[in-house]
Parts: sequence; C-alpha cells; structure tokens
Amino acid sequence: MATIATPHIRSAIILISCPDQKGIITAVTDFVYRHQGNIIDLDEHVDFGSKTFFMRIEWDMEHFSLSDDELRAYFLRYIATPYQMEWTLHFSDQKPIISLFVSQYLHCLYDILSRCDSGEWDVKVPLIFSNHEVGRDIAARFGAEFHLMHITKENKREQEQKQIQLLREHNVELVVLTRYMQILSPEFITEFPNRIINIHHSLLPAFVGARPYHQAFERGVKIIGATSHYVTADLDAGPIIEQDNVKITHKDSIEDMIRKGRDVEKIILARAVRLHMQRKILVHGNKTVVFI
Amino acid sequence: MATIATPHIRSAIILISCPDQKGIITAVTDFVYRHQGNIIDLDEHVDFGSKTFFMRIEWDMEHFSLSDDELRAYFLRYIATPYQMEWTLHFSDQKPIISLFVSQYLHCLYDILSRCDSGEWDVKVPLIFSNHEVGRDIAARFGAEFHLMHITKENKREQEQKQIQLLREHNVELVVLTRYMQILSPEFITEFPNRIINIHHSLLPAFVGARPYHQAFERGVKIIGATSHYVTADLDAGPIIEQDNVKITHKDSIEDMIRKGRDVEKIILARAVRLHMQRKILVHGNKTVVFI
Amino acid sequence: MATIATPHIRSAIILISCPDQKGIITAVTDFVYRHQGNIIDLDEHVDFGSKTFFMRIEWDMEHFSLSDDELRAYFLRYIATPYQMEWTLHFSDQKPIISLFVSQYLHCLYDILSRCDSGEWDVKVPLIFSNHEVGRDIAARFGAEFHLMHITKENKREQEQKQIQLLREHNVELVVLTRYMQILSPEFITEFPNRIINIHHSLLPAFVGARPYHQAFERGVKIIGATSHYVTADLDAGPIIEQDNVKITHKDSIEDMIRKGRDVEKIILARAVRLHMQRKILVHGNKTVVFI
Amino acid sequence: MATIATPHIRSAIILISCPDQKGIITAVTDFVYRHQGNIIDLDEHVDFGSKTFFMRIEWDMEHFSLSDDELRAYFLRYIATPYQMEWTLHFSDQKPIISLFVSQYLHCLYDILSRCDSGEWDVKVPLIFSNHEVGRDIAARFGAEFHLMHITKENKREQEQKQIQLLREHNVELVVLTRYMQILSPEFITEFPNRIINIHHSLLPAFVGARPYHQAFERGVKIIGATSHYVTADLDAGPIIEQDNVKITHKDSIEDMIRKGRDVEKIILARAVRLHMQRKILVHGNKTVVFI
Repeated sequence: MATIATPHIRSAIILISCPDQKGIITAVTDFVYRHQGNIIDLDEHVDFGSKTFFMRIEWDMEHFSLSDDELRAYFLRYIATPYQMEWTLHFSDQKPIISLFVSQYLHCLYDILSRCDSGEWDVKVPLIFSNHEVGRDIAARFGAEFHLMHITKENKREQEQKQIQLLREHNVELVVLTRYMQILSPEFITEFPNRIINIHHSLLPAFVGARPYHQAFERGVKIIGATSHYVTADLDAGPIIEQDNVKITHKDSIEDMIRKGRDVEKIILARAVRLHMQRKILVHGNKTVVFI
Repeated sequence: MATIATPHIRSAIILISCPDQKGIITAVTDFVYRHQGNIIDLDEHVDFGSKTFFMRIEWDMEHFSLSDDELRAYFLRYIATPYQMEWTLHFSDQKPIISLFVSQYLHCLYDILSRCDSGEWDVKVPLIFSNHEVGRDIAARFGAEFHLMHITKENKREQEQKQIQLLREHNVELVVLTRYMQILSPEFITEFPNRIINIHHSLLPAFVGARPYHQAFERGVKIIGATSHYVTADLDAGPIIEQDNVKITHKDSIEDMIRKGRDVEKIILARAVRLHMQRKILVHGNKTVVFI
Repeated sequence: MATIATPHIRSAIILISCPDQKGIITAVTDFVYRHQGNIIDLDEHVDFGSKTFFMRIEWDMEHFSLSDDELRAYFLRYIATPYQMEWTLHFSDQKPIISLFVSQYLHCLYDILSRCDSGEWDVKVPLIFSNHEVGRDIAARFGAEFHLMHITKENKREQEQKQIQLLREHNVELVVLTRYMQILSPEFITEFPNRIINIHHSLLPAFVGARPYHQAFERGVKIIGATSHYVTADLDAGPIIEQDNVKITHKDSIEDMIRKGRDVEKIILARAVRLHMQRKILVHGNKTVVFI
Repeated sequence: MATIATPHIRSAIILISCPDQKGIITAVTDFVYRHQGNIIDLDEHVDFGSKTFFMRIEWDMEHFSLSDDELRAYFLRYIATPYQMEWTLHFSDQKPIISLFVSQYLHCLYDILSRCDSGEWDVKVPLIFSNHEVGRDIAARFGAEFHLMHITKENKREQEQKQIQLLREHNVELVVLTRYMQILSPEFITEFPNRIINIHHSLLPAFVGARPYHQAFERGVKIIGATSHYVTADLDAGPIIEQDNVKITHKDSIEDMIRKGRDVEKIILARAVRLHMQRKILVHGNKTVVFI
C-alpha cells in the first residue's frame, strides 16, 4: 500500500497502545534515531479519560542498523516491556491478503476487486465467500476462488469452520464484509479480532439492523450515510472506522436512497480497508484511533 | 423574505396538499394564467405511498386581475374545494413576526438576531423568552423584550399561558427554540401546530434526548450533526426540516464536538427558519416536503 | 434507467426550452391530461436573464390515448410550434447505448463497466476506444469491443473518422471520456453536440489543462475536486453538469491527492452520465439546467 | 482559546520550522521531558520537496521546572540554535487582541463579535476600522471603538499610518478582514507579516478579484465556496488556511449564491482566526501547515 505514496522505500511501522506517562515519545523516537532510522511519519494521541497513550511511527529502513528480527527483539526488550505496551510491527513490503464475503448486492465487491485489479491497491484477494450464486461470475473474471456456502441454523457452525480453515490456509489477515447479509457467530469473530470490517448502510447508531434505508425513509431524515466498522459480537455496534453521508430530499424514494447510498457505501468501505492495510487504525475499547 | 431575491415584486404563494388525481397542475396554473398572473416558481411532488399531491406556486401580483380577497374566495370555490385541498395563501410583503426561546447557550440567538438586525432577514423579533438570565443583555442590545420565566413542574401551565398570551398579542406566527432546554407541554404545542421549530444537536434519530454530544463521544462516531424540526408532542421526533453534519476524529474531545457542533446548529436552524418564512415547507404526517 | 425507480411503468419524457411567456405550463400539462396521461414528474425553470423557459415533464404511458407517433406529431403541431420550443421526446424503455474513451487511468472505466455489468444501470457499452493498450483486458472481461487507436497529429483526422463511423454503426448516443488524455477535434465534437461527457480532475474553472492535482499542490489549496461537463471546442470550458470535492491538508502529497481525487472523479462522472441518460439535463448556452 | 478545551491548564506551545534532519523530535521531546513537562499535543510534518521540518508541541506547565524566561533562553541555546530553527513560543493564558476591518457587508463582523461577546472565544476586539458608516452602531453595541476611515488614492498612506499607530497602541496582534473591500498597501502588509487574515468569497484560485459570485454565476459552476488566507502583497494569492463550499443548482440566482455564500464565509473565517489564535498554523512559502 505505502508503495503508492513513497514508491522505493521499505519502511517499518509500529503501532502502540500503553498507559500514558512522560517520556514515551522520546524513548520511541530515540530508539529509531539511535539505529539510523529516518522517521517518515509520527502520530500520537492521548485518551485523557482512560490515560492511554497511542502512537504510530513509520521510518525508512534503508540505513536502519538493525535486522528485522533484531528490531523486534530490541524494541520488545528496551521499549515495549518497560512501558507496558501493546504493540504490532509491520513492514511496508508485506502484501496484504484479504477475503471478501458478499451476498446479492455486488457494488462493494466490484469496487474492491477493481482497485486490486487495476493496481490502485497492491493487495491479494484469493477467496470470495457468498451465500448467493450471483457473484461467481465476477469472482472468476477477477481471478478469485468463489465459495458458495448456504448458511442455515443447522450448518452454520460447520460452514464457518470450513471458512476459517480456508482463510488460514491462504494466510488471510483481513475479512471484508462487502454487504454480507449473514450474522457471523461469536466463534468466527473471535478468530479474527479487529480483523473483520463491515459496511453498514446507515450513519450508526441510527438505523441498526435490517433495511436501514427503509427505516430512514419512514423517519423522513434529510441525510443518509454509511458506516464502516470492525465486527464484534454486538450487531452493528463495533468500533467505527469511517462514516460518510449524502443529502436527500422528499423527492428521493427508497430506491433513490438505495442508489445514492451505494456510492457512499463502496467509497467508505474502501477507505476503511485501506486504512487498516496501511496500519493506521488502533482499536481502544469500542472506539478507533485513526491516524489519517 | 422573498424581497431579498426579487426586490421589487409583490408575489402570492399558495401551498397545497390534496389527494392526487390527474389535472391538478393544469387547474392551478390555468387559474393563475387566466387572471394574468406570471408564474415565478412552481414545485410539485407526489407521495406515491399515500397518493398525496403537494404543490407550491408563486406568481407575480403586478398584473394580476383579482384583489387579494377575490383571489382567496375564487381559489377556494373553483380550485381548492373541488380538489379537496388543504391550502394556505401568503404574500411576499407580509413581514414575518417570530419569537425566540433560549436557555444558557446563546449562539443560535446571536445568529438569528444578527440576521434580522443586519437586514439579511426582513423579520421582526419582538419577544425573547428564557429560563436563564444570561440572554437579557443581548436581547436589550437587539431591541427585543426579554421575559425571564423560570419553569417548574408547578408553575409550568401558568407560565406557558402567559407566554401564549404574549405571543398572541404580538401576532407571533413562528416560535423558534434556539437551544431551549425545556420541554413544551402538549397544550402549548397544540397552540402552534407546525409553527414551532427546534434545533437538536444530533443527526436524529441518533442520540435523542439529553447530552447528545456526550452520547456521540461514548459511541465513537466519526460524524456529528444537527437537526432542525417542527416540534410535536413526541420529544425530538417531529418532522425533520434540515440536517447537516461535520466530521470529527479521535482527537476531538466532547468540548471540541460542542464547539464544532455549534456552527452547524446555528446555520441549520437559520436555514429552517428561513424556509418556513418563505413558505417552502409542507408537513405531511411526520415528514416534510421542502421545496428548496 | 428509469426502470430502477418505477419498475413496471413505461413513461414518456419531454425536455423543453423556449422563450418564456405566460401559459406554457398550462398548455403542456393540459396536453398530457387531455390524452389521459398521469404526470409522474414535472420540473420547470425560468432563466430571468435571457427570459428562457425550461421544462421536463414525465408521464405514465399506460393509459395514454395517443400512439408514440401521434404524440410526437400532435405535440409538435399544437404545443411546440406555437410556443417556438426546442424539444426532445424520450421513452423510458429505450436502452441507452454509450461508448467509453480511456487512456491509462482506468478507475472511471472500471466503475462504469461495473455499474452496467451488475445491472445497476440498464445500459449497453459496445465500444471502448483507447490510445493505450492497458484497458484491453478489462474491456474483454466486460464484453466490450476494444479499439486501440494511437493518435498523432498526422493521423488524428483519419482515426476520428473511423471512431465516428463505428459509433454510428453501433447507434451510440453518448460518448463518455473516462479520463481520456486526448483533445478531440472540433469536427468530432460537432458530430455529438452535448453528447460527449468529460471528467476533469479539478473544480473548474480552477486548474484548467494538464496536471490539475500538481497545480493544486503548488497553490496549497485545502479543497480539491472533480467536474463533469459536456465537451465543447473550448478545452475544459463546456457546460458543467456536476462537481464534488474532498478536503485535503498539508499532509497530502500529490499522490494522496490523486488517490483521493480518483474516488470523487468516478462518482461524479457516473452521476453525470446517469443524469444524461435519464433526460434530466438541458443545456443553455454554456450552462446546464439539471432537474435532479 | 485553549482554555475552552482544557480549562484549568496553563500550557506552553512552541511552533518550529527548520531544515529536516534526524533526531529533532527526540531533541525537542527530551527537552520538555527532562524539565518535567507533560506533552499534551504533538504534531509534526515534513515537506519532502524542500526538506523542511515543522512541529507544534504543547505541554502542561504545571510541574515544568523552568520559568518562562528560562524556557525561552534554554530552548534557544540548546535546541533552536543547533537545529537552525525558526520558532515562536506562546502561552495558553495570553489573551489574543484582534482588530476587525469591514466595509458594508457585516455578517462576518456580527459573527466574530458574537463569538467574543458570548465567551465562545476569550479574545479582545478593541478596534474596528471601516470605510463605511454602517458598522458603527453594531461596534458600539459590542463595545469596540469604531474608526471610520475613507480611503482615497491620495490619503491612503496617511490613513494606513493612523491605523498602524492605533493597532500598535492597542497591542493588536492579528488583523481580520471581515469582508473589507479595500486593498491594503504593501507597506501595511509588511507591518503584519502572516498576521492579516482575509476571507475571499470563492474557492481560490477560482474567481480572483471583484464579484466572484457574479463570475461563478456566469461560468455556471455547481459548487461555490469561500477561502480564508493570510494577506500578502499579491491580491487573493496568499497562503490558504481553510476552504469550504456549498452546492448550488441552476435555480440559484446570484442573490441566492450571495446568501448561501455568506454562511460559508463567516464560518470559514472564524475557523481560520481560531486556528491562528490557537497557534496551529505555520506558514511555509505560499502554503500553510495547519495542525488541526
């Protein structure tokens, strides 16, 4: 992903959450500096309520004096452990592998496949799962395996186990629900903590659940929108990543709202997926810190 | 109001709601045409669910061949009655008279008073009611009577009766709640059907009730907003007129949300008040038709 | 197109421009009414500067008492001629045929092909022209003929003649430039008056010509955007159909602007193409009347 | 200003521009850390084209071990000088003093005076200058001295000298042009480098100069807007701080555009003034770095 902006650089990214205290920024930046890293980007945030410190730091690895393994080991020992950090380390040349789950509305699927196919995103999509046949043809045209899996109360556990196994085999790191009209089980969600992104077609928390455009039409709102969020066990209640909206008037029928909403949904889902892949999102409780 | 856009014209405006049937537009436009009226603006809308027809027509009165009284009588007899219309007739040279109700947050009050004072709006504001002392000074500076009325469970009925009497004496046609932190009684609301406009500091129906910015902060939304609506007996559930929003990030504290929200609130309330005064809003059930 | 909103109705649409005078709306609506047409949608606009009247009327043909040919003939004789109208007649069951011209940036191409392929649009795309090889594969996957045509100063006239011939053979009614980096000759444009839509990646009239994001970066603007417009002989100066924007900050590199701009471009181009196909646009001089 | 967000804290803010090199962030944060400062906010940015580093750091002074004078002296000696920094130091308890220049359009004047009067801003406005009489009354009501100064080619130099003297006497640090229809001389501008903020009623660089809404109407754009920027000797070409926009349609007359534009102008000007007073803006060449 980062190759788009800074094509020839291999960079390292560390995401940090830890109890707030003085000196963290100095400690982290000094670590990078002492090993000849040049900082490309640094963002930090303090949640004053919970006294939690968040940070994202990215630096150029070209002249960095540690190997990747040394980096991981030294940072753990000298920085992460003393400051009680939760942290993750990423490198810009890791190609993300994602899987798409879809039902009968395909606009988000087309959009993400197009971004990967055109080279806008440097991302691999090996697997598409659906409970409807309709996406098979487009999956084939974009070179992804298509798995039709009808889900019933009886077979849900078994079907999800098959999905998990395939996702593991293909080293999928992120599951994207591109308008997938099935509720994932808590077991499935636990397999991919903060690694399942959904698009809900309302400005959450308004219009939770089924048929949000119909609900919006009934209420007579003048703004509709879409929300991308991480999936948790609570339906439509996970940490929100991005939201956007479009104005409507009394002239807009439910069909018009669905049509206008589609364009918001696909853009706002793509933005969330990109932010995740660029390691710009930290989850804290039921909220996100997004370093745009 | 309309004088701003078309300074030297005296126009008539008719707002219509009636059961949909063929021929209404022809009947209405022909009525205007036959009496030498030149149509300035025509908007119509059909609600297909309830088969209801809505229309706003405005025409130049300069060469119109009927007097205002004849216009009213003839339109009633030949058009409104046969088509079972609910309708209202307005003239662009009627100066609207409005009253403001406010508590301790004054940004909407300042904004509306400034619009009237500067001549942006050609509107009279004779009366300001408040349950807090803080607005008295600004009311005085803008030449409006300021009535401090503390409201308790015990005196509410009595205080509202005083308010209603003063509003009647001053021929107030529209009550604007510029962040008024009191719930009006159903009796008060019945006095001014579709003639009380409120601003709620959320994108309704999200975050109904008290402290919506605090609720929004807790939920971790990325968009906040404001909603102007007609007041009905159901709290924050009346017909929505306008909504607008502003994006926020994890960096925004509740205080930041309040600050950013203020600017949206005052603009979106002013837009709703202006639309009402320009006779551009029709209420249908719990929705509005707004001919922008 | 209209079938999305009102699936089972065959409707007629008339677009009208004529000198303003009293009685036009009555005449047109009466024509529809007398022949048993039920008006679905009516929009009108008067340009007071040039005293020009614009109208779009759409009605249900189910019980209409005239054949399509009678409709055309009678309207011409009894309405259009007396009122000196320029007018066009359309039916909602005509399937639009469009052609796409593209260079090396493919996001708008993917987007429009996806809309047609998924059934979001009921539109045919038989022909894609390009001066680059890169789009051939995607064209094939979506079932469109791909014509690679290198354009030089010497062969331009000849190449364009081939294009015009192919467009005629396939009854293409609308040419869409989905980021086509070639200037069309005045002769080509004359073949398709108000029937070529371009997307320019700036908020025109800012940043005309080449590399608008680079220009925007140099100037340090905080908003970038895109403009869809009809193509005329003056570069980037034709009638504007739609514009939309996205905010940027000092953190956004030119590459970020290109990335953010892409999403605006594809949405705003699609909206313009859809509005054209729904017969919602009238051109007047160098401006558009868009009945949204 | 900062007291709104963090009411009881006295904080120090340093703004830095310098040649980019490794170790700057570590040096600055370590300086704060070693003297017991707790960092509240840190933002940094690198302009890769010019290899310039920008930083804003704000910390709580409560337990800081240096006096204000020591802070200034030590930072200069140990940090600013070695790293060749341009830098400024501010404290959150300095009450900003601003002056407003206005002509006949008063909406921005009302808006800023209301923000100061209501306590939304903790800012002093001792002086208002105008070349029109119309603002005198509102100035009086808000307790500001009003200076009517007609400007002609002959007296311009003299009048501006009087203005400069008054501004100095009142320790005005920021001049805000709230729709001031006079061009300031280069001499005046030199007195207040990056300390004069103007609002221009277009999305610059579109529609430079006089009557931008008229220009926008002629061109037939679908989006209008406003731009707040620092004033430089080049008309409407100074560093842009904020821009916002509003959509328009063919229905909007020039008067409608002026009306819709007013609301954008006053909000976007207020945002820029607030950002300046919160020390969130750095100027670099003809651009701004705005740490929102």
